[in-house]
Amino acid sequence: MAELFITKQSGEGERFDVTKLKRSLLASGASVADVTAVLKQLTALVKPGVSTAELYRRAFQLLRSIGKSYAARYSLSRAIMQLGPSGFPFEQYVAAVLEVAGYQTCTNQIFQGKCLTHEVDVVAEKPAENIHAIIEVKFHNRPGNKTGSKDILYTHARFLDINQEWVVKRARGAKPQGGELQSWLFTNTKVTTDVIQYARCAGLRITSWDYPADASFKKMIDTHLLYPITVLLGLNADQKNQLLRARLVLCRDLLEPKNEKMIHRLGLGDRKIKLLLNEVQSLLNGV
Amino acid sequence: MAELFITKQSGEGERFDVTKLKRSLLASGASVADVTAVLKQLTALVKPGVSTAELYRRAFQLLRSIGKSYAARYSLSRAIMQLGPSGFPFEQYVAAVLEVAGYQTCTNQIFQGKCLTHEVDVVAEKPAENIHAIIEVKFHNRPGNKTGSKDILYTHARFLDINQEWVVKRARGAKPQGGELQSWLFTNTKVTTDVIQYARCAGLRITSWDYPADASFKKMIDTHLLYPITVLLGLNADQKNQLLRARLVLCRDLLEPKNEKMIHRLGLGDRKIKLLLNEVQSLLNGV
Repeated sequence: MAELFITKQSGEGERFDVTKLKRSLLASGASVADVTAVLKQLTALVKPGVSTAELYRRAFQLLRSIGKSYAARYSLSRAIMQLGPSGFPFEQYVAAVLEVAGYQTCTNQIFQGKCLTHEVDVVAEKPAENIHAIIEVKFHNRPGNKTGSKDILYTHARFLDINQEWVVKRARGAKPQGGELQSWLFTNTKVTTDVIQYARCAGLRITSWDYPADASFKKMIDTHLLYPITVLLGLNADQKNQLLRARLVLCRDLLEPKNEKMIHRLGLGDRKIKLLLNEVQSLLNGV
Repeated sequence: MAELFITKQSGEGERFDVTKLKRSLLASGASVADVTAVLKQLTALVKPGVSTAELYRRAFQLLRSIGKSYAARYSLSRAIMQLGPSGFPFEQYVAAVLEVAGYQTCTNQIFQGKCLTHEVDVVAEKPAENIHAIIEVKFHNRPGNKTGSKDILYTHARFLDINQEWVVKRARGAKPQGGELQSWLFTNTKVTTDVIQYARCAGLRITSWDYPADASFKKMIDTHLLYPITVLLGLNADQKNQLLRARLVLCRDLLEPKNEKMIHRLGLGDRKIKLLLNEVQSLLNGV
């Protein structure tokens, strides 16, 4: 196929890359044969100027016809953006993901710094390993946005202010006495190379959509099957918001007996509830 | 008059404050008698829900009928916002204001920090006093926005990164050898109390629209009559942009013989040029 330009969400042109599209389709978990069939139908749609949004919508439909869980995994990054517009459900989600990774977490804690009082999005601790981290959670709800150097610089300055006070308090005997306070930026977007460079140099930890490769946000979600409820096709926007307000953010939590009542309050009939729980099951079973 | 709520640009309600309105009218330089007359006409307009934008527009018209220079001074903060939407003409303007205050300046300089390379908006120096400052210029082009703690934290982290490299280079013999590098945030908006608190604690200098009271941005402009060309009623938007692109940002520069050619290129007739220069003169004479 000749070189073709398609239109990104931002309005910019992008060279159509069939390898990239194939990779994203395979990441949904669908079989090679299925992906090949989907890809064939999609490339027929690709004409100069077609939007990535249109291609995405069509890919989603085709995957859904194969299996809901493939469509859900394919739409993961967009589902996470649906945790907005405010950053609060996303902070809850990040905390839930970190809990599964073995951290104790709390959200929206007030810390006194040397110069200012700060509200820290998420605090994550592993007392056994003496890990105490304050996490700046950066949520973007538009595709294509990147977290840039201003965000990491601001995160570091805030950490320095909090840490100065932390060191003083520990010298006076405050707990925890072991370990150092760590600074961590967590975001659902990609980050610029400047952000990675600065973080390495200044000693911050970063988790972004695709960084670090072996422990990226996407990887954490896939490895532990931590899909947010916003991926589910069996719930409408109101029902999703109702669950988020009740701090139920992970699909797998819908299978817990303690949440049965909550599900019944969504106003779904018995048949729809059964379909919903089946959707969750196949998502968690990777089929 | 009973308590009345008017509608701010942001859509929020604000209690109508006749004292505040009188103060802003007097700041235009108009006489007490004139201000009293204008105020009388304006308060007749004030009804529940009337917008501040509408009141402002009417006040501007009334002042203009008394004298163009009063209207220009009254509209100063809005004229500065018209230096946008990009921050570049505003950076030029800040540099021009600082030059008059005795600084040598340059804009958009690249500095190598310890971790990153940074583009610094304005560098201001007084070699005789060993003052070397890197200035983060924060421009907002919507009324009511404030510069907040993320901006000052980011400014400080960037300064720390640059300063670490500066100290290393000076230790190796690089000039200047005297003085310390200073960090300075300059903005056309107001700042939050957190910004002032942090700047004092961490050692940054701030110039905002109204802070510090004795050397605020507004005060600098009024003291040295440094009105930007965007206040002028004798120029349309295209003509203003033409001058800004040529880096002519101060009204008083229009009176310089070397800029005569530039003014003729604006396409104004002789009569309009004369009126324009009269407008500048009366602005600079405070009448």
